[in-house]
Amino acid sequence: MLGAIEAGGTKFVAAIGRGHDDIVAQVQIPTTTPDETLQRTIDWFRANGDIAGLGLASFGPVDLDPASPEWGYITNTPKAGWGQTSVAARLGDALGCPVGLDTDVNAAAIGEHLYGAAQGCDVAIYVTIGTGIGGGAVINGNTVKGSRHPEMGHILPRRHPQDIDFAGICPAHGDCLEGLASGPAIKARWGASLSELAPDHVAHDIIADYLAQLCQTQIALYSPQRIILGGGVMQTAGLLDKIREQATKRVGSYFGVDAGAIITPPGLGTRSGIAGAFELAKRAVNGKK
Amino acid sequence: MLGAIEAGGTKFVAAIGRGHDDIVAQVQIPTTTPDETLQRTIDWFRANGDIAGLGLASFGPVDLDPASPEWGYITNTPKAGWGQTSVAARLGDALGCPVGLDTDVNAAAIGEHLYGAAQGCDVAIYVTIGTGIGGGAVINGNTVKGSRHPEMGHILPRRHPQDIDFAGICPAHGDCLEGLASGPAIKARWGASLSELAPDHVAHDIIADYLAQLCQTQIALYSPQRIILGGGVMQTAGLLDKIREQATKRVGSYFGVDAGAIITPPGLGTRSGIAGAFELAKRAVNGKK
Ligand SMILES: Nc1ncnc2c1ncn2[C@@H]1O[C@H](COP(=O)(O)OP(=O)(O)O)[C@@H](O)[C@H]1O
Ligand SMILES: Nc1ncnc2c1ncn2[C@@H]1O[C@H](COP(=O)(O)OP(=O)(O)O)[C@@H](O)[C@H]1O
Ligand SMILES: [Zn+2]
Ligand SMILES: [Zn+2]
Repeated sequence: MLGAIEAGGTKFVAAIGRGHDDIVAQVQIPTTTPDETLQRTIDWFRANGDIAGLGLASFGPVDLDPASPEWGYITNTPKAGWGQTSVAARLGDALGCPVGLDTDVNAAAIGEHLYGAAQGCDVAIYVTIGTGIGGGAVINGNTVKGSRHPEMGHILPRRHPQDIDFAGICPAHGDCLEGLASGPAIKARWGASLSELAPDHVAHDIIADYLAQLCQTQIALYSPQRIILGGGVMQTAGLLDKIREQATKRVGSYFGVDAGAIITPPGLGTRSGIAGAFELAKRAVNGKK
Repeated sequence: MLGAIEAGGTKFVAAIGRGHDDIVAQVQIPTTTPDETLQRTIDWFRANGDIAGLGLASFGPVDLDPASPEWGYITNTPKAGWGQTSVAARLGDALGCPVGLDTDVNAAAIGEHLYGAAQGCDVAIYVTIGTGIGGGAVINGNTVKGSRHPEMGHILPRRHPQDIDFAGICPAHGDCLEGLASGPAIKARWGASLSELAPDHVAHDIIADYLAQLCQTQIALYSPQRIILGGGVMQTAGLLDKIREQATKRVGSYFGVDAGAIITPPGLGTRSGIAGAFELAKRAVNGKK
């Protein structure tokens, strides 16, 4: 049996099974303090029998460097209590198994690449637009890590002409993409989620514009065959089509891709991250950290 | 012996040798019509003895897909006469050897990764700021190709407050990065190259700002350990330091990287592309297209 965890800032999803398509037990644990959250996770796994390996798809910033003494630590997060906290090694030690680690969005990109909407793609990007905005990428079968890991939500889109007064809510950058287009940024500006605003409310055009700019930037820098858009905000009816339309207009024929065709919803629904975490578990069992 | 070509829009540089550090002959051929340019290149190689393989670092857009019937074609370029033109196969057929192909900037990234300023980096980016602006990337030892290849010069930086009237010169996007900060964009705006403008001319701050935004975008999307800035415009005294300074300020501590430290000039000077082309030749001899 393998264990898989999608560790988010709001909740931990943990699963046991032989793979993403053969899950025997699954649980959600709210993210409170590290001690409480990790102990509840460990207890749940122990109550469900031994696992040979664990895959951890983690919120960030997280140290992914296998050579670092802080491998698997959440690092400088603003999330209360979680700064400089060991997660991966602590779970692995408690459960007595190797741990495969990546970011939540890199893991989701792995899941989509293997089993979802990005099968066969040399270059695939997964983006979540939810409480935050993050992106992960699989290139030639491996995720992009680099000096830490991508933080794709923190690019600077050009301001929409009907959205010039709002300062943005990113503590680090103000009006970066996450500061303008994440779920909380939408609430801060218009007092409701995008789904709750009337279909002709200008918010739909504004948010689609910013997310189309993200797609254009990703196309320019990565030339992806797939950009997969997931997360709570993408549940908004009509948003995906608006983004496709605006991205197609922006991208034109220049980059040699049909933006409308490569931008898709997750093939695995909300299970991309857990599917990737199972793959990380398999790799851990096979000796890859 | 191996052959290496850096095929640019202004000139072709061709070299013969055992590798980038053992070149026995080299030539520059101006880029005119495809027929003339390619024939002169072929004649030069023939006059210099047999080669076992050829590496081609090409300007774009170029078809990199080994499975495509137009592999090695320059595709929809505005460059007169070069649209839909076979380059790689034509050179390989004439010289009777396998051809390894990549973009000029991907090849430069390979050269820098193997022998220059990006040695040991999982994620390295090479940017040229010259007649155009382009970027290539090496991830875990391979370049990023995807649906075509990256076109990193065509992102949309936020306009500098002292540069709001200039419309930009990119035929496709107007005021994308290339439209604002390439050599010709600088000339169009201020009538001179950046080196020819007084050190306290506002152009230096404006161009540094746009290039720092490119670095921030690359850090957000790629988390690179190195961003290497090459090309004619980067010859401007003081520009690299200004970019480092502005990128450091923009990036802050958020991405977990020291922007000033990862932004560097090419370790191989102007030879990054040819070094990468020799590597492409070696791979072609070993059976990789
Ligand atoms: N159906 C929906 N329509 C619009 N926005 C939604 C919807 N569901 C959730 N959201 C927004 O998405 C955010 C939560 O994103 P989600 O991806 O569900 O969780 P998280 O990012 O915390 O993992 C909230 O800000 C919420 O307002
Ligand atoms: N020393 C220099 N200082 C500033 N700009 C320069 C310098 N040398 C070349 N340039 C500019 O760079 C552009 C040429 O770029 P270069 O990288 O040399 O060639 P290309 O991009 O055509 O391969 C021209 O627009 C030129 O004005
Ligand atoms: Zn931000
Ligand atoms: Zn452009």
